[in-house]
Amino acid sequence: MELDKNLNILIVGLGLMGGSYARALTSKGYKVKAIDTNQKSIDFALQNKFIIDGSSEVNTDMVSESDLIIFAVYPHAFIPWIEQYKDYIKKGAIITDVTGVKSCVVYDVQRILGDRAEFVAAHPMAGKETSGVESSDESIFENANYIVVPTDVNTFEAIETIKAIGQTLGFARISSLPPKAHDEMIGFVSQLTHCIAVCLMTCSKSEHLVDYTGDSFRDLTRIARINENMWSELFLLNKEALLKQMKTFMNEMENFYTLLENEDVEAMKDKMRLSTERRELFNKPAKGE
Amino acid sequence: MELDKNLNILIVGLGLMGGSYARALTSKGYKVKAIDTNQKSIDFALQNKFIIDGSSEVNTDMVSESDLIIFAVYPHAFIPWIEQYKDYIKKGAIITDVTGVKSCVVYDVQRILGDRAEFVAAHPMAGKETSGVESSDESIFENANYIVVPTDVNTFEAIETIKAIGQTLGFARISSLPPKAHDEMIGFVSQLTHCIAVCLMTCSKSEHLVDYTGDSFRDLTRIARINENMWSELFLLNKEALLKQMKTFMNEMENFYTLLENEDVEAMKDKMRLSTERRELFNKPAKGE
Repeated sequence: MELDKNLNILIVGLGLMGGSYARALTSKGYKVKAIDTNQKSIDFALQNKFIIDGSSEVNTDMVSESDLIIFAVYPHAFIPWIEQYKDYIKKGAIITDVTGVKSCVVYDVQRILGDRAEFVAAHPMAGKETSGVESSDESIFENANYIVVPTDVNTFEAIETIKAIGQTLGFARISSLPPKAHDEMIGFVSQLTHCIAVCLMTCSKSEHLVDYTGDSFRDLTRIARINENMWSELFLLNKEALLKQMKTFMNEMENFYTLLENEDVEAMKDKMRLSTERRELFNKPAKGE
Repeated sequence: MELDKNLNILIVGLGLMGGSYARALTSKGYKVKAIDTNQKSIDFALQNKFIIDGSSEVNTDMVSESDLIIFAVYPHAFIPWIEQYKDYIKKGAIITDVTGVKSCVVYDVQRILGDRAEFVAAHPMAGKETSGVESSDESIFENANYIVVPTDVNTFEAIETIKAIGQTLGFARISSLPPKAHDEMIGFVSQLTHCIAVCLMTCSKSEHLVDYTGDSFRDLTRIARINENMWSELFLLNKEALLKQMKTFMNEMENFYTLLENEDVEAMKDKMRLSTERRELFNKPAKGE
């Protein structure tokens, strides 16, 4: 399914992700407007011609005429926005988001919107170590995953529209997961990995090691450059799932520590063989590539 | 200093690293011979013309005529080899190695060789997730670190010769560290990172996550494809330093776990800010680049 070129698209929140959505949609021929509290972000996007109109206040006309509204704001700002402006949203509009955790927002937003508009959550698993609209870049979607996170109330048509956004943006893989399963998965593949990278960077002074580090250390700590406001919020919103994943990982490190302490070489080799075998799968092209 | 083109160079152990040394030295115009227990490895190197002669047995003539011998064997095989064949080594020859840990081999090898030949240890911090001479590839040295690990008995001239090898091989950065400091550093930047990658892969079943993983998870687990024989040996040989680094990291993960459990957002942000600030340094070009 292709996204209708005549849709009036509004992006709320013009940071790294909102800006990258705007760039990608504009370059594919869509007309994109944006609302962001920061006038400089709006000006930057207008000057670089990846929005056709923008406002640093919530322009209710802009909201009312939009068929598709994409929220790319911090989770804590999302629900209050919907509560405050829901009556201005066009009847039958489709709403989506880019929030990194889902259970904590999806059900509330759907309840507040009621029958007025349909919210289908989505998680673009793409990013950068820098933030802000100045860093926006549509190439972050290449080779990346886009996950639609529908609930039981969503309609087939709206889900397909949200999948079409992912295709239009240029994601390599589009998939679908319900909110709870999504949050469990994200706790492991994204949040736990960010925790590990941060802890590896904070556990020892490392400044004097810069000249000696090879690819291994750089790879494991690339994501240790982190937007502390966004990630601390996401961690908190997925607290139970993330704590569980951290505990599982820490127990495994303890196991490995004991094996080394006891010089149990065969058991260490077994772990390494399992690790190699599992990692091998990730080198094969994923489905849909 | 440039390595003398007329040196007779012998590589003992023709796997991934020995093969990559042979390829790089041959392509720079040096004459390289090799000894490896596996005749197939010798044949492969002869067919691909990156050695001029080779033997699957220890050819004592080949040993006696060599001015420079590079050991690229497993640590457990290195010292017994020196003990068995030291009397065939040319007087005044220079010996080096590629072993990933140093304190456990350097002093023994220097003691066994006595005045006959000079051993200067070196650690090429380069590699691949696959092993064997068939995987050898001189491009692994580009952008990588080469560390000379001299002891108090080494001479200026021999140290400079070993540095010249690193330059000839095409390493981006050549540095120098004494054995103990080298092993501490390696415990952190290389061995701890491999432990983490393995534990991340073994702590949970992950096969069903292949379609959802983004760059973060792939980056953190790239080195989880691991040669279990080599790495379990290296871990054991650097046991005390590695256990200490693992403990420091695990304590930091415990700290972070407690912060999240207590919803101490400000302290989590502090950790993330420190992490970002430290990681920033690693994006700047290192000295010598």
